[in-house]
Amino acid sequence: MAESLAVINIGQLVTLAGAARPRVGEELGELAIVMDAALLVEEGSIVAAGAYAEIKAKIPPGAKTIDAEGHCVTPGFVDAHSHLVFAGNRADEFEQRIDGASYQQIAAEGGGILRTVRMTRAASEEELLAVARRHRNWMLRSGTTTIEAKSGYGLERATELRMLRVLARLNAEGPVRIVSTLLAAHMVPPEFADRRAEYLRWIAEELIPEVAAAKLARYCDAFCDDHALSVDEAHCVLTAAMRHGLRLRVHAEQFRENTGAALAAELGAATADHLEAATGETLGLLRKAGVQPVLLPGSVFALGHERYPQARKMIETGLAIVLATDFNPGSSPVASIPFILSLSCLKMRLTPAEALISATLNAAYSLGMGDRVGSLEAGKEADFLIHEFSDYRELAYFIAAPLRPRVFIAGTEVTR
Amino acid sequence: MAESLAVINIGQLVTLAGAARPRVGEELGELAIVMDAALLVEEGSIVAAGAYAEIKAKIPPGAKTIDAEGHCVTPGFVDAHSHLVFAGNRADEFEQRIDGASYQQIAAEGGGILRTVRMTRAASEEELLAVARRHRNWMLRSGTTTIEAKSGYGLERATELRMLRVLARLNAEGPVRIVSTLLAAHMVPPEFADRRAEYLRWIAEELIPEVAAAKLARYCDAFCDDHALSVDEAHCVLTAAMRHGLRLRVHAEQFRENTGAALAAELGAATADHLEAATGETLGLLRKAGVQPVLLPGSVFALGHERYPQARKMIETGLAIVLATDFNPGSSPVASIPFILSLSCLKMRLTPAEALISATLNAAYSLGMGDRVGSLEAGKEADFLIHEFSDYRELAYFIAAPLRPRVFIAGTEVTR
Repeated sequence: MAESLAVINIGQLVTLAGAARPRVGEELGELAIVMDAALLVEEGSIVAAGAYAEIKAKIPPGAKTIDAEGHCVTPGFVDAHSHLVFAGNRADEFEQRIDGASYQQIAAEGGGILRTVRMTRAASEEELLAVARRHRNWMLRSGTTTIEAKSGYGLERATELRMLRVLARLNAEGPVRIVSTLLAAHMVPPEFADRRAEYLRWIAEELIPEVAAAKLARYCDAFCDDHALSVDEAHCVLTAAMRHGLRLRVHAEQFRENTGAALAAELGAATADHLEAATGETLGLLRKAGVQPVLLPGSVFALGHERYPQARKMIETGLAIVLATDFNPGSSPVASIPFILSLSCLKMRLTPAEALISATLNAAYSLGMGDRVGSLEAGKEADFLIHEFSDYRELAYFIAAPLRPRVFIAGTEVTR
Repeated sequence: MAESLAVINIGQLVTLAGAARPRVGEELGELAIVMDAALLVEEGSIVAAGAYAEIKAKIPPGAKTIDAEGHCVTPGFVDAHSHLVFAGNRADEFEQRIDGASYQQIAAEGGGILRTVRMTRAASEEELLAVARRHRNWMLRSGTTTIEAKSGYGLERATELRMLRVLARLNAEGPVRIVSTLLAAHMVPPEFADRRAEYLRWIAEELIPEVAAAKLARYCDAFCDDHALSVDEAHCVLTAAMRHGLRLRVHAEQFRENTGAALAAELGAATADHLEAATGETLGLLRKAGVQPVLLPGSVFALGHERYPQARKMIETGLAIVLATDFNPGSSPVASIPFILSLSCLKMRLTPAEALISATLNAAYSLGMGDRVGSLEAGKEADFLIHEFSDYRELAYFIAAPLRPRVFIAGTEVTR
């Protein structure tokens, strides 16, 4: 695409321009907004983003021009934690939880993650691709242009690899950028219930080397929880991943403290995800180790809980927080980043600005892509949204609104 | 439109067929679902809704056929409480509330409803129509086919009438059915602060007769609250409305008990709306008087509160509950009925079936339209949705999903 694209008449351009690192503390409120702005794109990359008065002269005569009609333009959303690939859904368990069953009770009775595992194992690669594409399209419609997605509903070689291949194919077909994470350590499958160590050793010694060699994942994740892996078990898997060049993300302290965050700090993971039960001491460890907390308020909401992660305390601690959907069929059937922004403002007292940065630039850094996406600056990929409104705060304010942003990835408009 | 329309290959047809009255108690769980179904429409009305095997023979040769691809079909949503027409938005107050300001504090400082009143008074009829159309389109996108909408941001003759004219024009232009409610008794405007009785007398003796004579509203509403009208003040307005043939809806017990529900019962109002603070005794009064409670969980959520109306107790009491968005720029910037369904399941423990009936058939009855819309039965208007999924529970389960149902009103597909 050698064509130039100029987006003009941007009422409010939210660039997030600034230092090349994730934002912490007060920086989380600094959006680097330009009014009466324009965006100039060449070959899918941003050439200039700023005041129209300054950019006007740079627009080549033959450039394709898009009128933003005075509306707000932001970077595309980066969803740094999702479980995009799965078969079936668990709408019946949603109904059971309304009747009072807890997530843990449902899991103990053969429902929950293990039910999705059974359905996913039974699904073909083409079936999984079709479902993953459907979910990807939902995310795309609400403005997500980069998605982290995990395996973890296979818990056996064939299905884990199938899930990762589906993600690789989805990434290859584009336009949404997909970053893959191996989550074979989501839990120990029933057939290994009496020989847990054997399952974990298999991940560490066979699956991880195979996945790493085939470049089927960039990250490795482990779910530390009473109903999943102990910290020691996660340690075994994650250190193996490091040896094979995978970077780390850890499901930590979702329901109980001391379930993984310290391990994430010890191993220098990119992220520790969930953290609803994290203590102040733990946050300090994450800070020292440079681990980014990925907050998943959608799962708190969908489980009907009220204990959200302590986002304000994390910001005070100097952590570069990230917001993500945790999209999955059990604890977070939420595909929409705008809804996550609303929830973060209402339930974790983030300002709309802090929430927006956490779901774009900071999320991009947590995926090692902060140099390519997450803000609108010269040299970066032209992944951006033209919204239906003129003030970025409306993203969080109009809760669950059926808004339809115009979505551009690498400078090309996408519709789904 | 003399053309016949056949919708075939409906995996799950949620008809809500049954007795011609609102549903109470266990009936709220009875969806009258037909699998492998079809829908036959002539001249905008439903001719038959049921098993494809039975309907097949009735489809005329020249009928237009739509393939529902095995998906779920439900009635269009009926939103029985909204404030569709207003100028400006209050995204900045959303931010202030995150910082800890209460809805009442913001109102006391000149923000809140009075701020919207100032902006709405300053807007022309064309400006208001454009904004109302935008909001109407959001609702339509998520599947709402009938909307109740109120005046109440004028609090003076010209603007109240302008808002009602906007609603009349929106109804006339179609396709969404709009039912108008006069809410000049939303609060007493500042210029009447020292002569409240005079304002209420003006509504009762001048505005109501004029609005009723011009047929600009079918209902009259009053906001009973510490920051709005006392019960006696509301009584004055509502009895005048009755004398002029308007039916009644009452904003009652939102923040404190004994603020309007008993009055709604005494006057035989169609609905008492909000009821977060309603007691068991009050619910009994509503039951005896046949008043339908309109529950507005969106405003509880958007205000960051946790006290939702006691929906389960209302169902036990035998009340024909209704769910609605309360769409407005302050306490409920929520346009999506599907999100209200999710919230009702998660926060008020309604089942997905109970929630769906409350936002369709029961809502239609609360607007005196139960004989025309709200279910899919022969003789009713063909207002229906073809969803992207095959199980109605997914509506509530996929929280804030950017779903795009195909929307039909009077048998004609609508896109916005």
